[in-house]
Amino acid sequence: MTKNTKVNAAILIIGNEILSGRTQDTNTSTLANWLNSIGVKVNEVRVVPDLENKIIDTLNILRSENDYVFTTGGIGPTHDDITAQSVAKAFGIKYEIHNEAFKILESYYKPGEFNEGRQKMVWMPSGAELILNPTSGAPGFMVDNVFCLPGVPSILKSMLGGLKNKIVGGKPILSHTISLRTVESEIANSLSKVQDQNKDVEIGSYPFFHSGKLGVSIVIRSDNQSKIDTCNSQILKFVNEKKIEVVER
Amino acid sequence: MTKNTKVNAAILIIGNEILSGRTQDTNTSTLANWLNSIGVKVNEVRVVPDLENKIIDTLNILRSENDYVFTTGGIGPTHDDITAQSVAKAFGIKYEIHNEAFKILESYYKPGEFNEGRQKMVWMPSGAELILNPTSGAPGFMVDNVFCLPGVPSILKSMLGGLKNKIVGGKPILSHTISLRTVESEIANSLSKVQDQNKDVEIGSYPFFHSGKLGVSIVIRSDNQSKIDTCNSQILKFVNEKKIEVVER
Repeated sequence: MTKNTKVNAAILIIGNEILSGRTQDTNTSTLANWLNSIGVKVNEVRVVPDLENKIIDTLNILRSENDYVFTTGGIGPTHDDITAQSVAKAFGIKYEIHNEAFKILESYYKPGEFNEGRQKMVWMPSGAELILNPTSGAPGFMVDNVFCLPGVPSILKSMLGGLKNKIVGGKPILSHTISLRTVESEIANSLSKVQDQNKDVEIGSYPFFHSGKLGVSIVIRSDNQSKIDTCNSQILKFVNEKKIEVVER
Repeated sequence: MTKNTKVNAAILIIGNEILSGRTQDTNTSTLANWLNSIGVKVNEVRVVPDLENKIIDTLNILRSENDYVFTTGGIGPTHDDITAQSVAKAFGIKYEIHNEAFKILESYYKPGEFNEGRQKMVWMPSGAELILNPTSGAPGFMVDNVFCLPGVPSILKSMLGGLKNKIVGGKPILSHTISLRTVESEIANSLSKVQDQNKDVEIGSYPFFHSGKLGVSIVIRSDNQSKIDTCNSQILKFVNEKKIEVVER
């Protein structure tokens, strides 16, 4: 794995409703799974409120530290949707009517229905590239390495397909899971030794409770299948020696 | 609402499994709902990987900017559980065996079962105060304004009850929801006017799709019930004028 094959991203979830606990965010796992599948590793996630300065400051940090930033939320028609204007300010560019977005929404709605509220959704940072929305018309947009997506999970999902050719990923991150009928403390030392011998492989240990039974899932992640295989063999070796039942491999 | 009644917190979710998309975080909404109920507003959430320097740097920012910080994850017995040592380094204090935690776990396990793996869970920042765990023995801990909780949602939940008297909250944040059979763009301008007239109340607008029908939930949040009532009246006034169906109020 050479340095330049690593591509990373941050996710910026914008919305008071996540911070109040009212809404359970699911966009992080949707985006993270999808990004992993195209070879982009998520370095960090941040959730911030609908406050312009907070969005601007956070975005400016994340876009300088990561190859890509994905924002979710705040691109609808209401007063609390301030992502587009905040992104424009973060980049120091104009916030203005996007002609292509205007045409898309003008033809999406019936005559007379493209009202002032809906027209807010065509205001974007100047020069933004559109991310088409096959579900509900109103597009997302990208500026430089920042991709702005809606907060509604089903709409966000429907827009990912159109994004793939705009992102240059690294090698896909592969993963292998071994699920054991044991507890973490029984395998902690042996697993730690495997990690020490394979420092560039990510090995995670996650307890689970299924059908009233305890278990541990060991997840091995790397962009190199043979390294995963090596760790897998080393883990199964100590698992066999300890006579631990393998639930799934 | 005077300035000093506002108490805020940040949540720091520690774990590669959230960033890879493998695990859906639910601890944020659990903590946020609970914190709101005791008058603590969540300012920010960050999700970081199991990397010591990243945990240290992030924690040091969050603990200086917020009244409280709650971490989840990374306090188990395996090699990828590095929260306790990272917190110790963030505060510049020793990482050592916590005698009280040692006694708790020694008596929790059967004789001979308090093995080396389990003993890792009693290593904590020097002088940490324990957060008792009624589910699985191993305690969390607090250092200054930082509260370290486990990542397993059911265990985390079981530990919150014991925390309440350690947190001084402000006025509870009250909330009222009005659900309408409409779309956001129909109410955006009117709602914006209500927000302009009530700047210290948080008004959010959230589209929903239930049973194939579109709707919008308006959420009004404040620590002052009369301010919520004022906004509620102003919103219902324009809702009636526009002949929009109220699904829930």
